[in-house]
Amino acid sequence: MKISVVKDILEANDRIARQNRELFDEKGVTVFNLMSSPGAGKTSLLEKTIEAVQGKIRLGVIEGDIQSSQDAERIARFGIPVVQINTGGACHLDGNMIRDTFEEFDFDELDLLVVENVGNLVCPAEFQVGEDFKAMILSVTEGEDKPAKYPLMFHESRVLLINKIDLVPYVDCDVEKIREEALKVNPHLTIFDISCKTGEGLDAWCEWLVETVRKRKSA
Amino acid sequence: MKISVVKDILEANDRIARQNRELFDEKGVTVFNLMSSPGAGKTSLLEKTIEAVQGKIRLGVIEGDIQSSQDAERIARFGIPVVQINTGGACHLDGNMIRDTFEEFDFDELDLLVVENVGNLVCPAEFQVGEDFKAMILSVTEGEDKPAKYPLMFHESRVLLINKIDLVPYVDCDVEKIREEALKVNPHLTIFDISCKTGEGLDAWCEWLVETVRKRKSA
Repeated sequence: MKISVVKDILEANDRIARQNRELFDEKGVTVFNLMSSPGAGKTSLLEKTIEAVQGKIRLGVIEGDIQSSQDAERIARFGIPVVQINTGGACHLDGNMIRDTFEEFDFDELDLLVVENVGNLVCPAEFQVGEDFKAMILSVTEGEDKPAKYPLMFHESRVLLINKIDLVPYVDCDVEKIREEALKVNPHLTIFDISCKTGEGLDAWCEWLVETVRKRKSA
Repeated sequence: MKISVVKDILEANDRIARQNRELFDEKGVTVFNLMSSPGAGKTSLLEKTIEAVQGKIRLGVIEGDIQSSQDAERIARFGIPVVQINTGGACHLDGNMIRDTFEEFDFDELDLLVVENVGNLVCPAEFQVGEDFKAMILSVTEGEDKPAKYPLMFHESRVLLINKIDLVPYVDCDVEKIREEALKVNPHLTIFDISCKTGEGLDAWCEWLVETVRKRKSA
Protein backbone atom coordinates (compact mmCIF):
# COMPACT_ATOMS: atom_id res chain seq x y z
CA MET A 1 0.00 0.00 0.00
CA LYS A 2 2.72 2.39 1.06
CA ILE A 3 4.79 1.32 -1.95
CA SER A 4 2.00 2.01 -4.42
CA VAL A 5 1.58 5.54 -3.06
CA VAL A 6 5.28 6.19 -3.48
CA LYS A 7 5.18 4.74 -6.98
CA ASP A 8 2.30 7.02 -7.95
CA ILE A 9 4.19 10.06 -6.73
CA LEU A 10 7.30 9.06 -8.68
CA GLU A 11 5.30 8.40 -11.86
CA ALA A 12 3.44 11.68 -11.60
CA ASN A 13 6.77 13.41 -11.11
CA ASP A 14 8.34 11.71 -14.13
CA ARG A 15 5.45 12.95 -16.27
CA ILE A 16 5.97 16.56 -15.17
CA ALA A 17 9.74 16.21 -15.57
CA ARG A 18 9.24 15.06 -19.17
CA GLN A 19 7.12 18.15 -19.86
CA ASN A 20 9.84 20.35 -18.37
CA ARG A 21 12.36 18.61 -20.54
CA GLU A 22 10.32 19.26 -23.68
CA LEU A 23 10.39 22.97 -22.95
CA PHE A 24 14.16 22.92 -22.29
CA ASP A 25 14.70 21.01 -25.56
CA GLU A 26 12.58 23.47 -27.50
CA LYS A 27 14.59 26.37 -26.06
CA GLY A 28 17.96 24.62 -26.44
CA VAL A 29 18.77 25.07 -22.76
CA THR A 30 21.09 22.54 -21.11
CA VAL A 31 19.92 21.70 -17.59
CA PHE A 32 21.85 19.92 -14.91
CA ASN A 33 20.74 18.86 -11.49
CA LEU A 34 23.47 19.35 -8.89
CA MET A 35 23.26 17.11 -5.84
CA SER A 36 25.34 16.32 -2.75
CA SER A 37 25.29 15.99 1.02
CA PRO A 38 24.86 19.22 2.97
CA GLY A 39 28.06 21.25 2.94
CA ALA A 40 29.89 19.32 0.22
CA GLY A 41 30.26 22.54 -1.75
CA LYS A 42 27.41 22.88 -4.28
CA THR A 43 27.04 26.65 -3.98
CA SER A 44 30.81 27.18 -3.84
CA LEU A 45 31.18 25.16 -7.04
CA LEU A 46 28.49 27.27 -8.69
CA GLU A 47 30.22 30.49 -7.64
CA LYS A 48 33.53 29.34 -9.10
CA THR A 49 31.87 27.97 -12.23
CA ILE A 50 29.92 31.16 -12.90
CA GLU A 51 33.11 33.23 -12.55
CA ALA A 52 34.85 31.00 -15.09
CA VAL A 53 32.14 30.54 -17.72
CA GLN A 54 30.32 33.87 -17.61
CA GLY A 55 30.79 35.50 -21.03
CA LYS A 56 31.11 32.08 -22.69
CA ILE A 57 27.66 30.76 -21.85
CA ARG A 58 24.55 32.39 -20.40
CA LEU A 59 23.60 30.82 -17.05
CA GLY A 60 20.58 30.76 -14.81
CA VAL A 61 20.31 29.03 -11.42
CA ILE A 62 17.53 27.51 -9.35
CA GLU A 63 18.47 27.20 -5.68
CA GLY A 64 16.67 24.54 -3.65
CA ASP A 65 16.66 24.73 0.14
CA ILE A 66 14.28 23.67 2.84
CA GLN A 67 14.33 27.25 4.02
CA SER A 68 16.46 30.43 3.84
CA SER A 69 17.59 32.33 0.75
CA GLN A 70 21.30 32.48 1.59
CA ASP A 71 22.34 30.50 -1.47
CA ALA A 72 20.29 32.56 -3.91
CA GLU A 73 21.82 35.72 -2.43
CA ARG A 74 25.31 34.30 -3.00
CA ILE A 75 24.47 33.60 -6.66
CA ALA A 76 22.59 36.89 -7.25
CA ARG A 77 25.86 38.78 -6.69
CA PHE A 78 26.95 37.61 -10.14
CA GLY A 79 24.04 39.40 -11.80
CA ILE A 80 22.58 36.26 -13.35
CA PRO A 81 18.95 35.08 -13.12
CA VAL A 82 18.40 33.05 -9.93
CA VAL A 83 15.29 31.73 -8.23
CA GLN A 84 15.20 30.35 -4.69
CA ILE A 85 12.82 27.47 -4.02
CA ASN A 86 12.04 26.84 -0.36
CA THR A 87 10.64 23.34 -0.02
CA GLY A 88 9.31 24.05 3.46
CA GLY A 89 10.45 20.69 4.80
CA ALA A 90 10.70 18.51 1.71
CA CYS A 91 14.06 16.81 1.31
CA HIS A 92 14.42 17.12 -2.47
CA LEU A 93 13.25 19.12 -5.47
CA ASP A 94 10.73 17.67 -7.89
CA GLY A 95 9.48 18.44 -11.38
CA ASN A 96 6.57 20.48 -10.14
CA MET A 97 8.73 22.83 -8.08
CA ILE A 98 10.94 23.45 -11.11
CA ARG A 99 7.95 24.12 -13.34
CA ASP A 100 6.70 26.70 -10.83
CA THR A 101 9.84 28.79 -11.43
CA PHE A 102 9.41 29.00 -15.23
CA GLU A 103 7.74 32.40 -15.31
CA GLU A 104 10.81 33.83 -13.59
CA PHE A 105 13.14 32.89 -16.47
CA ASP A 106 13.44 33.98 -20.08
CA PHE A 107 14.76 30.73 -21.54
CA ASP A 108 15.51 32.39 -24.89
CA GLU A 109 18.27 34.23 -23.03
CA LEU A 110 19.82 31.13 -21.39
CA ASP A 111 22.20 28.40 -22.52
CA LEU A 112 22.46 26.61 -19.18
CA LEU A 113 20.16 26.24 -16.20
CA VAL A 114 21.68 24.76 -13.06
CA VAL A 115 19.34 23.27 -10.48
CA GLU A 116 21.03 23.13 -7.09
CA ASN A 117 19.13 20.53 -5.13
CA VAL A 118 18.54 20.27 -1.38
CA GLY A 119 21.64 18.97 0.40
CA ASN A 120 20.88 15.27 0.72
CA LEU A 121 22.78 12.25 -0.60
CA VAL A 122 19.64 10.12 -0.81
CA CYS A 123 16.26 11.46 -1.89
CA PRO A 124 17.12 13.96 -4.67
CA ALA A 125 18.46 11.11 -6.81
CA GLU A 126 14.97 9.60 -7.03
CA PHE A 127 13.28 12.62 -8.57
CA GLN A 128 13.74 13.79 -12.15
CA VAL A 129 13.29 17.51 -12.69
CA GLY A 130 13.65 17.52 -16.49
CA GLU A 131 17.44 17.71 -16.49
CA ASP A 132 19.84 16.62 -19.25
CA PHE A 133 22.10 15.12 -16.64
CA LYS A 134 22.75 14.89 -12.95
CA ALA A 135 26.05 15.95 -11.40
CA MET A 136 27.02 15.17 -7.84
CA ILE A 137 29.68 16.35 -5.44
CA LEU A 138 31.35 14.18 -2.82
CA SER A 139 33.68 15.88 -0.39
CA VAL A 140 36.82 13.99 0.64
CA THR A 141 35.74 14.61 4.25
CA GLU A 142 32.77 12.30 3.72
CA GLY A 143 34.84 9.16 3.32
CA GLU A 144 35.46 6.41 0.81
CA ASP A 145 32.53 4.25 1.85
CA LYS A 146 29.88 6.57 0.43
CA PRO A 147 29.45 5.06 -3.05
CA ALA A 148 28.76 1.64 -1.50
CA LYS A 149 26.44 3.05 1.13
CA TYR A 150 24.53 5.57 -1.00
CA PRO A 151 24.71 4.01 -4.46
CA LEU A 152 21.65 5.49 -6.15
CA MET A 153 23.02 9.00 -6.57
CA PHE A 154 26.32 7.69 -7.93
CA HIS A 155 24.36 5.43 -10.25
CA GLU A 156 22.13 8.23 -11.57
CA SER A 157 24.85 10.85 -12.04
CA ARG A 158 26.83 11.52 -15.19
CA VAL A 159 29.45 13.58 -13.39
CA LEU A 160 31.12 13.15 -10.00
CA LEU A 161 33.10 16.06 -8.61
CA ILE A 162 35.37 15.03 -5.74
CA ASN A 163 35.66 18.28 -3.81
CA LYS A 164 37.89 19.65 -1.04
CA ILE A 165 40.96 17.79 -2.27
CA ASP A 166 43.00 20.46 -0.47
CA LEU A 167 41.94 18.68 2.75
CA VAL A 168 43.35 15.29 1.72
CA PRO A 169 46.50 15.70 3.86
CA TYR A 170 44.36 16.23 6.98
CA VAL A 171 41.73 13.52 6.62
CA ASP A 172 41.84 9.74 6.36
CA CYS A 173 40.67 9.55 2.79
CA ASP A 174 42.11 7.95 -0.33
CA VAL A 175 40.81 9.77 -3.42
CA GLU A 176 41.79 6.85 -5.65
CA LYS A 177 39.61 4.59 -3.51
CA ILE A 178 36.61 6.96 -3.85
CA ARG A 179 37.12 6.87 -7.60
CA GLU A 180 37.28 3.05 -7.64
CA GLU A 181 34.22 2.64 -5.45
CA ALA A 182 32.23 5.17 -7.48
CA LEU A 183 33.15 3.49 -10.79
CA LYS A 184 32.07 0.13 -9.36
CA VAL A 185 28.58 1.60 -8.92
CA ASN A 186 28.64 3.49 -12.23
CA PRO A 187 31.43 2.84 -14.76
CA HIS A 188 30.19 5.71 -16.96
CA LEU A 189 30.92 8.48 -14.45
CA THR A 190 33.03 11.42 -15.61
CA ILE A 191 35.09 12.33 -12.55
CA PHE A 192 36.80 15.61 -11.68
CA ASP A 193 39.00 16.11 -8.60
CA ILE A 194 38.53 19.70 -7.49
CA SER A 195 39.06 22.18 -4.71
CA CYS A 196 36.69 25.14 -4.68
CA LYS A 197 39.04 26.69 -2.13
CA THR A 198 42.32 26.55 -4.09
CA GLY A 199 40.75 26.37 -7.55
CA GLU A 200 42.53 23.13 -8.40
CA GLY A 201 40.79 21.08 -11.08
CA LEU A 202 38.11 23.67 -11.82
CA ASP A 203 39.45 24.50 -15.29
CA ALA A 204 38.92 20.95 -16.50
CA TRP A 205 35.37 20.89 -15.14
CA CYS A 206 34.47 24.28 -16.63
CA GLU A 207 35.89 23.36 -20.03
CA TRP A 208 33.92 20.12 -20.02
CA LEU A 209 30.76 22.02 -19.05
CA VAL A 210 31.10 24.71 -21.73
CA GLU A 211 31.83 22.04 -24.33
CA THR A 212 28.78 20.02 -23.24
CA VAL A 213 26.51 23.06 -23.45
CA ARG A 214 27.83 23.98 -26.91
CA LYS A 215 27.46 20.45 -28.24
CA ARG A 216 23.86 20.30 -27.09
CA LYS A 217 23.14 23.72 -28.61
CA SER A 218 24.43 22.62 -31.99
CA ALA A 219 22.78 19.19 -31.87
CA MET B 1 -4.10 14.63 -0.86
CA LYS B 2 -0.36 14.10 -0.84
CA ILE B 3 -0.15 15.84 2.53
CA SER B 4 -2.76 13.60 4.11
CA VAL B 5 -0.89 10.48 3.00
CA VAL B 6 2.31 11.80 4.55
CA LYS B 7 0.43 12.69 7.74
CA ASP B 8 -1.00 9.17 7.99
CA ILE B 9 2.45 7.66 7.64
CA LEU B 10 3.86 9.93 10.35
CA GLU B 11 0.96 9.20 12.71
CA ALA B 12 1.23 5.45 12.19
CA ASN B 13 4.94 5.73 12.86
CA ASP B 14 4.42 7.73 16.05
CA ARG B 15 2.09 5.00 17.34
CA ILE B 16 4.71 2.30 16.76
CA ALA B 17 7.43 4.50 18.25
CA ARG B 18 5.34 4.92 21.42
CA GLN B 19 5.02 1.14 21.70
CA ASN B 20 8.79 0.77 21.29
CA ARG B 21 9.26 3.39 23.96
CA GLU B 22 7.02 1.52 26.40
CA LEU B 23 9.21 -1.54 26.06
CA PHE B 24 12.40 0.48 26.55
CA ASP B 25 10.85 2.13 29.64
CA GLU B 26 9.85 -1.23 31.07
CA LYS B 27 13.39 -2.53 30.58
CA GLY B 28 15.06 0.67 31.78
CA VAL B 29 17.07 1.01 28.57
CA THR B 30 18.11 4.50 27.47
CA VAL B 31 17.82 4.90 23.71
CA PHE B 32 19.26 7.63 21.59
CA ASN B 33 18.85 8.26 17.91
CA LEU B 34 22.08 9.47 16.30
CA MET B 35 21.68 11.53 13.16
CA SER B 36 23.86 13.54 10.78
CA SER B 37 24.80 14.12 7.16
CA PRO B 38 26.71 11.31 5.45
CA GLY B 39 30.30 11.21 6.62
CA ALA B 40 29.96 13.57 9.58
CA GLY B 41 31.32 10.85 11.86
CA LYS B 42 28.45 8.88 13.41
CA THR B 43 30.18 5.50 13.36
CA SER B 44 33.52 7.00 14.41
CA LEU B 45 31.80 8.65 17.38
CA LEU B 46 30.25 5.33 18.32
CA GLU B 47 33.60 3.55 18.14
CA LYS B 48 35.22 6.14 20.42
CA THR B 49 32.23 6.18 22.77
CA ILE B 50 32.12 2.39 23.09
CA GLU B 51 35.84 2.30 23.91
CA ALA B 52 35.32 4.89 26.65
CA VAL B 53 32.12 3.66 28.30
CA GLN B 54 32.41 -0.10 27.94
CA GLY B 55 32.59 -1.52 31.47
CA LYS B 56 30.59 1.41 32.84
CA ILE B 57 27.39 0.82 30.89
CA ARG B 58 26.17 -2.05 28.71
CA LEU B 59 25.61 -0.92 25.12
CA GLY B 60 23.85 -2.23 22.07
CA VAL B 61 23.77 -0.63 18.63
CA ILE B 62 21.39 -0.58 15.68
CA GLU B 63 23.07 0.48 12.45
CA GLY B 64 20.88 2.00 9.74
CA ASP B 65 22.11 2.15 6.16
CA ILE B 66 20.48 2.06 2.77
CA GLN B 67 22.70 -0.87 1.99
CA SER B 68 25.99 -2.51 3.08
CA SER B 69 26.96 -3.80 6.51
CA GLN B 70 30.27 -1.95 6.84
CA ASP B 71 29.16 0.02 9.89
CA ALA B 72 27.84 -3.01 11.78
CA GLU B 73 31.14 -4.77 11.11
CA ARG B 74 33.03 -1.83 12.59
CA ILE B 75 30.88 -1.97 15.73
CA ALA B 76 30.90 -5.77 16.03
CA ARG B 77 34.66 -5.66 16.65
CA PHE B 78 33.89 -4.40 20.16
CA GLY B 79 31.97 -7.56 21.01
CA ILE B 80 28.71 -5.78 21.77
CA PRO B 81 25.26 -6.61 20.34
CA VAL B 82 24.75 -4.91 16.99
CA VAL B 83 22.10 -5.25 14.31
CA GLN B 84 22.38 -3.82 10.80
CA ILE B 85 19.19 -2.53 9.20
CA ASN B 86 19.34 -2.08 5.43
CA THR B 87 16.52 0.20 4.37
CA GLY B 88 16.88 -0.78 0.71
CA GLY B 89 16.47 2.79 -0.50
CA ALA B 90 14.58 4.50 2.32
CA CYS B 91 16.29 7.65 3.55
CA HIS B 92 15.59 7.25 7.28
CA LEU B 93 14.79 4.69 9.97
CA ASP B 94 11.29 4.41 11.37
CA GLY B 95 9.61 2.81 14.38
CA ASN B 96 8.71 -0.32 12.51
CA MET B 97 12.27 -1.04 11.40
CA ILE B 98 13.46 -0.67 14.99
CA ARG B 99 10.72 -2.99 16.27
CA ASP B 100 11.81 -5.61 13.75
CA THR B 101 15.22 -5.83 15.46
CA PHE B 102 13.85 -6.55 18.95
CA GLU B 103 14.25 -10.32 18.81
CA GLU B 104 17.97 -9.82 18.23
CA PHE B 105 18.48 -8.05 21.59
CA ASP B 106 18.20 -9.12 25.22
CA PHE B 107 17.13 -5.78 26.70
CA ASP B 108 17.58 -7.10 30.27
CA GLU B 109 21.29 -7.08 29.50
CA LEU B 110 21.43 -3.51 28.12
CA ASP B 111 21.60 -0.04 29.67
CA LEU B 112 21.90 1.89 26.43
CA LEU B 113 20.77 1.28 22.87
CA VAL B 114 22.16 3.59 20.21
CA VAL B 115 20.30 3.86 16.92
CA GLU B 116 22.61 5.13 14.19
CA ASN B 117 20.32 6.55 11.54
CA VAL B 118 20.87 6.78 7.78
CA GLY B 119 23.23 9.66 6.90
CA ASN B 120 20.81 12.44 6.05
CA LEU B 121 20.38 15.88 7.61
CA VAL B 122 16.70 16.06 6.66
CA CYS B 123 14.33 13.08 6.79
CA PRO B 124 15.47 11.14 9.91
CA ALA B 125 14.44 14.09 12.11
CA GLU B 126 10.80 13.56 11.14
CA PHE B 127 10.53 9.97 12.34
CA GLN B 128 10.44 8.90 15.98
CA VAL B 129 11.82 5.44 16.69
CA GLY B 130 10.96 5.32 20.41
CA GLU B 131 14.10 7.11 21.56
CA ASP B 132 14.63 9.05 24.81
CA PHE B 133 16.45 11.72 22.87
CA LYS B 134 17.99 12.56 19.55
CA ALA B 135 21.65 13.50 19.18
CA MET B 136 23.09 14.95 16.02
CA ILE B 137 26.56 15.53 14.65
CA LEU B 138 27.57 18.45 12.47
CA SER B 139 31.06 18.42 11.01
CA VAL B 140 32.92 21.73 10.81
CA THR B 141 33.46 20.96 7.11
CA GLU B 142 29.72 21.35 6.52
CA GLY B 143 29.64 25.07 7.26
CA GLU B 144 27.96 27.52 9.59
CA ASP B 145 24.81 27.95 7.53
CA LYS B 146 23.46 24.48 8.26
CA PRO B 147 21.28 25.25 11.33
CA ALA B 148 19.43 27.94 9.35
CA LYS B 149 19.10 25.76 6.27
CA TYR B 150 18.23 22.43 7.93
CA PRO B 151 16.51 23.59 11.14
CA LEU B 152 14.32 20.59 11.96
CA MET B 153 17.09 18.26 13.07
CA PHE B 154 18.64 20.97 15.24
CA HIS B 155 15.21 21.68 16.65
CA GLU B 156 14.48 18.04 17.48
CA SER B 157 17.86 17.16 18.97
CA ARG B 158 18.83 17.35 22.61
CA VAL B 159 22.55 17.09 21.88
CA LEU B 160 24.68 18.62 19.13
CA LEU B 161 28.20 17.26 18.65
CA ILE B 162 30.35 19.57 16.53
CA ASN B 163 32.85 17.11 15.06
CA LYS B 164 36.20 17.32 13.21
CA ILE B 165 37.31 20.39 15.16
CA ASP B 166 40.88 19.31 14.30
CA LEU B 167 40.08 20.56 10.76
CA VAL B 168 39.15 24.10 11.87
CA PRO B 169 42.54 25.55 10.83
CA TYR B 170 42.04 24.26 7.27
CA VAL B 171 38.41 25.18 6.59
CA ASP B 172 36.47 28.45 6.52
CA CYS B 173 34.37 27.71 9.55
CA ASP B 174 33.75 29.55 12.80
CA VAL B 175 32.70 27.06 15.50
CA GLU B 176 31.31 29.86 17.67
CA LYS B 177 29.05 30.86 14.78
CA ILE B 178 27.76 27.26 14.41
CA ARG B 179 26.96 27.28 18.10
CA GLU B 180 25.13 30.62 17.88
CA GLU B 181 23.13 29.57 14.82
CA ALA B 182 22.23 26.22 16.38
CA LEU B 183 21.10 27.83 19.64
CA LYS B 184 18.93 30.26 17.67
CA VAL B 185 17.04 27.25 16.33
CA ASN B 186 17.04 25.38 19.65
CA PRO B 187 18.19 27.16 22.83
CA HIS B 188 18.00 23.90 24.81
CA LEU B 189 20.76 22.10 22.89
CA THR B 190 23.62 20.60 24.88
CA ILE B 191 26.67 21.15 22.68
CA PHE B 192 30.00 19.31 22.65
CA ASP B 193 32.95 20.28 20.43
CA ILE B 194 34.76 17.07 19.53
CA SER B 195 37.31 15.46 17.28
CA CYS B 196 36.92 11.72 16.81
CA LYS B 197 40.38 11.81 15.22
CA THR B 198 42.37 13.46 18.06
CA GLY B 199 39.96 12.51 20.86
CA GLU B 200 39.46 16.14 21.92
CA GLY B 201 36.19 16.75 23.75
CA LEU B 202 35.15 13.09 23.88
CA ASP B 203 35.61 12.79 27.65
CA ALA B 204 32.98 15.44 28.34
CA TRP B 205 30.52 13.78 25.95
CA CYS B 206 31.10 10.29 27.40
CA GLU B 207 30.73 11.52 30.99
CA TRP B 208 27.49 13.26 30.08
CA LEU B 209 26.24 10.10 28.40
CA VAL B 210 27.08 7.76 31.27
CA GLU B 211 25.49 10.18 33.73
CA THR B 212 22.34 10.43 31.58
CA VAL B 213 22.02 6.66 31.37
CA ARG B 214 22.51 6.27 35.14
CA LYS B 215 19.99 8.98 35.97
CA ARG B 216 17.38 7.34 33.79
CA LYS B 217 18.11 3.94 35.31
CA SER B 218 17.56 5.23 38.84
CA ALA B 219 14.51 7.36 37.90
